[in-house]
Amino acid sequence: MDFRQEAGAADRIGLLIVGVGGAVASTVAAGLEHIRQGSADRIGLPLAQFDNAGLVPYDHIEIAGWDLNPANLADAAAHHGVLPQSMLSSLNDRLAGVTPWAATINTNFCHNVDGSNRIKANSHLGSIEQIRQDIRGFSARTGIKRLVVVNLASVESWPEDTAAFATVERFEQALIDNHPSISPAMLYAYAAIREGIPYGNFTPSLGADIPALTALAKELGVPVAGKDGKTGQTLIKTVLAPAFRDRALHVDGWFSTNILGNNDGFALDHSGSLASKLQTKGSVLDDILGYKVEDHVCQIHYYRPRGDDKEAWDNIDISGFLGQRMQIKVNFLCKDSVLAAPLVIEIARCLDLARRRGAGGAQMQMGLFFKSPMTVDAVPPEHDFFRQQQNLVDWLQHDA
Amino acid sequence: MDFRQEAGAADRIGLLIVGVGGAVASTVAAGLEHIRQGSADRIGLPLAQFDNAGLVPYDHIEIAGWDLNPANLADAAAHHGVLPQSMLSSLNDRLAGVTPWAATINTNFCHNVDGSNRIKANSHLGSIEQIRQDIRGFSARTGIKRLVVVNLASVESWPEDTAAFATVERFEQALIDNHPSISPAMLYAYAAIREGIPYGNFTPSLGADIPALTALAKELGVPVAGKDGKTGQTLIKTVLAPAFRDRALHVDGWFSTNILGNNDGFALDHSGSLASKLQTKGSVLDDILGYKVEDHVCQIHYYRPRGDDKEAWDNIDISGFLGQRMQIKVNFLCKDSVLAAPLVIEIARCLDLARRRGAGGAQMQMGLFFKSPMTVDAVPPEHDFFRQQQNLVDWLQHDA
Amino acid sequence: MDFRQEAGAADRIGLLIVGVGGAVASTVAAGLEHIRQGSADRIGLPLAQFDNAGLVPYDHIEIAGWDLNPANLADAAAHHGVLPQSMLSSLNDRLAGVTPWAATINTNFCHNVDGSNRIKANSHLGSIEQIRQDIRGFSARTGIKRLVVVNLASVESWPEDTAAFATVERFEQALIDNHPSISPAMLYAYAAIREGIPYGNFTPSLGADIPALTALAKELGVPVAGKDGKTGQTLIKTVLAPAFRDRALHVDGWFSTNILGNNDGFALDHSGSLASKLQTKGSVLDDILGYKVEDHVCQIHYYRPRGDDKEAWDNIDISGFLGQRMQIKVNFLCKDSVLAAPLVIEIARCLDLARRRGAGGAQMQMGLFFKSPMTVDAVPPEHDFFRQQQNLVDWLQHDA
Amino acid sequence: MDFRQEAGAADRIGLLIVGVGGAVASTVAAGLEHIRQGSADRIGLPLAQFDNAGLVPYDHIEIAGWDLNPANLADAAAHHGVLPQSMLSSLNDRLAGVTPWAATINTNFCHNVDGSNRIKANSHLGSIEQIRQDIRGFSARTGIKRLVVVNLASVESWPEDTAAFATVERFEQALIDNHPSISPAMLYAYAAIREGIPYGNFTPSLGADIPALTALAKELGVPVAGKDGKTGQTLIKTVLAPAFRDRALHVDGWFSTNILGNNDGFALDHSGSLASKLQTKGSVLDDILGYKVEDHVCQIHYYRPRGDDKEAWDNIDISGFLGQRMQIKVNFLCKDSVLAAPLVIEIARCLDLARRRGAGGAQMQMGLFFKSPMTVDAVPPEHDFFRQQQNLVDWLQHDA
Repeated sequence: MDFRQEAGAADRIGLLIVGVGGAVASTVAAGLEHIRQGSADRIGLPLAQFDNAGLVPYDHIEIAGWDLNPANLADAAAHHGVLPQSMLSSLNDRLAGVTPWAATINTNFCHNVDGSNRIKANSHLGSIEQIRQDIRGFSARTGIKRLVVVNLASVESWPEDTAAFATVERFEQALIDNHPSISPAMLYAYAAIREGIPYGNFTPSLGADIPALTALAKELGVPVAGKDGKTGQTLIKTVLAPAFRDRALHVDGWFSTNILGNNDGFALDHSGSLASKLQTKGSVLDDILGYKVEDHVCQIHYYRPRGDDKEAWDNIDISGFLGQRMQIKVNFLCKDSVLAAPLVIEIARCLDLARRRGAGGAQMQMGLFFKSPMTVDAVPPEHDFFRQQQNLVDWLQHDA
Repeated sequence: MDFRQEAGAADRIGLLIVGVGGAVASTVAAGLEHIRQGSADRIGLPLAQFDNAGLVPYDHIEIAGWDLNPANLADAAAHHGVLPQSMLSSLNDRLAGVTPWAATINTNFCHNVDGSNRIKANSHLGSIEQIRQDIRGFSARTGIKRLVVVNLASVESWPEDTAAFATVERFEQALIDNHPSISPAMLYAYAAIREGIPYGNFTPSLGADIPALTALAKELGVPVAGKDGKTGQTLIKTVLAPAFRDRALHVDGWFSTNILGNNDGFALDHSGSLASKLQTKGSVLDDILGYKVEDHVCQIHYYRPRGDDKEAWDNIDISGFLGQRMQIKVNFLCKDSVLAAPLVIEIARCLDLARRRGAGGAQMQMGLFFKSPMTVDAVPPEHDFFRQQQNLVDWLQHDA
Repeated sequence: MDFRQEAGAADRIGLLIVGVGGAVASTVAAGLEHIRQGSADRIGLPLAQFDNAGLVPYDHIEIAGWDLNPANLADAAAHHGVLPQSMLSSLNDRLAGVTPWAATINTNFCHNVDGSNRIKANSHLGSIEQIRQDIRGFSARTGIKRLVVVNLASVESWPEDTAAFATVERFEQALIDNHPSISPAMLYAYAAIREGIPYGNFTPSLGADIPALTALAKELGVPVAGKDGKTGQTLIKTVLAPAFRDRALHVDGWFSTNILGNNDGFALDHSGSLASKLQTKGSVLDDILGYKVEDHVCQIHYYRPRGDDKEAWDNIDISGFLGQRMQIKVNFLCKDSVLAAPLVIEIARCLDLARRRGAGGAQMQMGLFFKSPMTVDAVPPEHDFFRQQQNLVDWLQHDA
Repeated sequence: MDFRQEAGAADRIGLLIVGVGGAVASTVAAGLEHIRQGSADRIGLPLAQFDNAGLVPYDHIEIAGWDLNPANLADAAAHHGVLPQSMLSSLNDRLAGVTPWAATINTNFCHNVDGSNRIKANSHLGSIEQIRQDIRGFSARTGIKRLVVVNLASVESWPEDTAAFATVERFEQALIDNHPSISPAMLYAYAAIREGIPYGNFTPSLGADIPALTALAKELGVPVAGKDGKTGQTLIKTVLAPAFRDRALHVDGWFSTNILGNNDGFALDHSGSLASKLQTKGSVLDDILGYKVEDHVCQIHYYRPRGDDKEAWDNIDISGFLGQRMQIKVNFLCKDSVLAAPLVIEIARCLDLARRRGAGGAQMQMGLFFKSPMTVDAVPPEHDFFRQQQNLVDWLQHDA
């Protein structure tokens, strides 16, 4: 079955991004526009080869979204400097046409972030209402009915009091009460799910990954996926660890440190949100290896000179036959947004496909894209990159 | 079905090693002895967890073999220095009990290698006869009927004239003619196959990987496997490349260099045999990625200070989304013999199992262990580490 | 002039170490003993070639000192595992003969450290009195008159209230008052200076590096030197930075991280003393380069698997001609105590020589040995390794 | 004394480059032009701070020269891609004004190099005559009398028969005889010296580094300097080795490998000229350390993906106190031409100053700039970077 047709509104999807003015989102927008103009090949797009799986074509995706910074996407892309100016000039008119909608903010969750383009609501319900109006307005204006919301906003810290997240009822009461444990990411997730729109979370923020929202998504048949995009160091970790397991090489310790100089790094370095980030990285190794790596250290440091060019070092101490010790060191000079952007696009395409297949709740087959994959019924997540890849391929080829 | 019983001769296997006095072989012997004494855990033994697959238990393996150096294995292990002296003292009596049989030598294939412990035959057929007598003598002396031959001798260069390898008939005529294209490794392989004994080749030498010998093995129902053990840099390569493929990251170039200071490194650095070594490393990447990596450079350098502690550097240039370039660098401080020895043991166990299952000819499911896996009927080899792992596991669990 | 004679007590010096049971100190003791036995060459001893400078010969140095752990040095050396057991057995009797004297402790300065072997004084003056008695007892027992005290104890945090350090008078009043700003390292330094014994500080603790103690040392003609031994990452930094300066390569950023798994690492990781450590590392770059490196990041992490085998990574971002950017990465797999021990020995020899030359106060020519060299009259310290080396050589050759 | 005045022809110098269309030379030209336009700071120019030494100002240098490729420097700079196009556009008119003169070629010395812009002479003397006419023509046209010739042409192999180089007489007879041992670089060097023009050699080719030419230069009072610019890996080596010497850390082995993808790399990889390159790198370590490093391995590999972005790896095995072994690894991601260009400029300025100071023959104080510094009277060269720096600074400040 091939869902692709003429690119009328019915064939297109709207990708609504929370944090649409950020480095990753503006790279998403620039990349999709290059594809539309025929000036990009498909390098870096992992699902480009699954033509017959029913995924929406790359050139049928429209971008919109919210951001605290009111700059249009042409200005945002130039500001972030992920792509050289020579790759942006031909896109200028199109990107300049996307201006972010006002966004919600709550400095309790995100200390280092600020911006003038704020939703003028002063209650949880007011914010949700505004978000839902933004979504409906987009749909009315463009005629596009198939929508996906993806969270790319700055990482939020995790609340300590989680009682309000236990059930849909408690969560909705907490919304009415303006409960302080409810973060902006949750408001967007709730709004999307209530609108029947799939929701993906590329950040370590909780977003939809609380019992109340996964239950609601399941009940309403809305697909949700997350959390925390698996781009650089954790990607490498989940590729190497299965090989150590299969070769029976014992991991004595794993020291990971990385430096990044973009806004994301600044936010992480200067706030409590580092904790949420590290939490999503932590158990990956143990789950793959089947034992606890006592000395697994993860560090993230803000280091300005690199800008968006993240760099990671991994030092792995392993023991082999007869307890003899060896070391492996990996140095990854990567580009954060360049690795992230195509995953965001694929997440949107998969969520849209899941929606059409009628699959509600957490999408376990999408674990490949995330550091901390959401699961259902307390199933432990699969972190092994190659098993995740197999899971997704199986799902794509099923019914395709 | 569980083949394990009381450890009578019927339950034991004999692992007959060509090059039994080398660094890898003496580590194999020391390791098996530690296991027998209960002073080793199973770290580094990849198939330790497949208890029910019918593989011979580790402590049921007896070592013997051929070497140009007449030193017993206690002296050999001390000389190579792979394991610290403190790990060898308790094994001394047992290792000293293994004295290598005289070995064949042909300096046309192996320039840098020499030794006094030579078979006194002056024809191909004479050498083969001596090898077969050594094998039968071992069996008669020990009562062990289940045998495996594994080649760990110094790497041989590849002959240019391969006409004699095309069929069993031509090969056997060439044996009679003392044809100069037939190398010592082939003599051992032929002798083993004619004795009905499985043959594994851990070196880049051709060994049984010629049409005449695979056909003969197939015809006689003798399993053969090879070639060139996948231990360090190629292991990492076949682990990372599948991830690049699955993430659609394009490999623009891959520069691999490594240094080693043991006999193997000396032989490689000072003779034409480097060519055979590099040949077995070459196509790995292209096969996994599905396109030709134009700039794939592999270097091996002899560098004395490290001894057996091989060290490898990989520099990988990749392009991601929108052609943006990134780099990954891997530095592996490994111990060559420590990585190799457990694979040799597992190869022996798998070949013995294959023999009992009646599978003759090249064992494709054993590709996991080799840089250049032998295949049948010109099937292209699978190099993807995780697919190889799956193939082996499927085979082990089948009928188990 | 050659001070060396028959090794009577008059020719020997006593090296009294605060923290004599630690990894560095026990390596010092083992090394000196190997030299005495003729089983060590002079690799790693930077001043071995300055035979005629009047430095005390290596085999004329006797070790004693204080430690919270009562274990003798044979047990301590075995426990720390810096040297393999095979290098300790021949030293056992001699090392077992050195049992630490009881040490002072003040958990306000050093949270993670504890031990049973404590001085039973409950006042600053009481502690000082005990220290001085220990020193005099050693001298009386051995007949050795030439003594040096070197601090190798766990790093202390720096006190906030420094008013008591301004003058000798205030400091001595504060001793009487048991002032909480006075740390154990200062008590040892004061005791040594009052005894007329040169004092060196290999740790980042303040020790003698306060105005009151440098003034007292100057006044009494007692040499003092410190602080924080320059062994690994800072050594490399002060070697490379002068080259960047001389080639006019601009340092845009310098990211330094290192892992260590010994007690020192544990103490640093779990207490506020990291601050003192990092403070002594901080200004090195700016002083050498002549401008402020905005993005100079130094990290130290406790990582158990390495034990005493410290490992450091430096990433240096530089700009060259026409603003073009480059990177240099240095990975140092070092052995902390092996690098430190010979410096401790040379510091003792230089302090003894300075004493004989009548030079009191801070010894600026010894800056080569320290991350944060003490200076006099607010002269900025020289950090350039090669200028430091020249300064020391000039001093050694002067009057020699 | 300050030589700087109004920038009349008398104040300017002509820098005549052999290989003016290459990557380094076009970066030199672009850089000087940026300085002239005020759009470059002095980062990367090591002698920028020696304002009063009498060196010609950077903006008083005019570029011309020879190249086998007839493209003007604007096209050459665009082709090599060392600098981004955005940094070249403002220079276009000026660079396009420099068109290379026809160059000599001799494929016996330089196999991989070719080009159409050839001198139409068919004898050594004919080539020399043409070169001298080019030089005089430049001077006549521009009015510039102070000239310097610098060799940046592709590396030449070294001739085996060196009898003709022993004296001026033999060399001049060999010129008449069209002796096959005389390479193009020697013809340029001879022509320059005979014209009384200082000659610098930034390549590993012999150039003026033969007895006949250094004697002639000495006799005629013409400064010469060389050879092989010290830019990347050897720079680092001569910075680190002095520190190992001063800390008495013994170098057990040093493994250096580097990859480069520009023309220089191609020429090296595919011809015998690698030998000359490696020869100039070889003795550096031994000379600094004072003993022979048995295991010093240097490798250069052509690896296309990097273009001009050379990358080097050094692995250094050192032994410290009590023979304990450590490792240091350095990874330099450098830009070959960006490191080389400012050195070429400084070499020209120093040679011009030496000429005005009346210093003929090999300029030992300029050793800082070269891997294989020329010396006089068989004095062994100084390789220690910091001693070289001191030598040059002393010379600059003398008489200044």
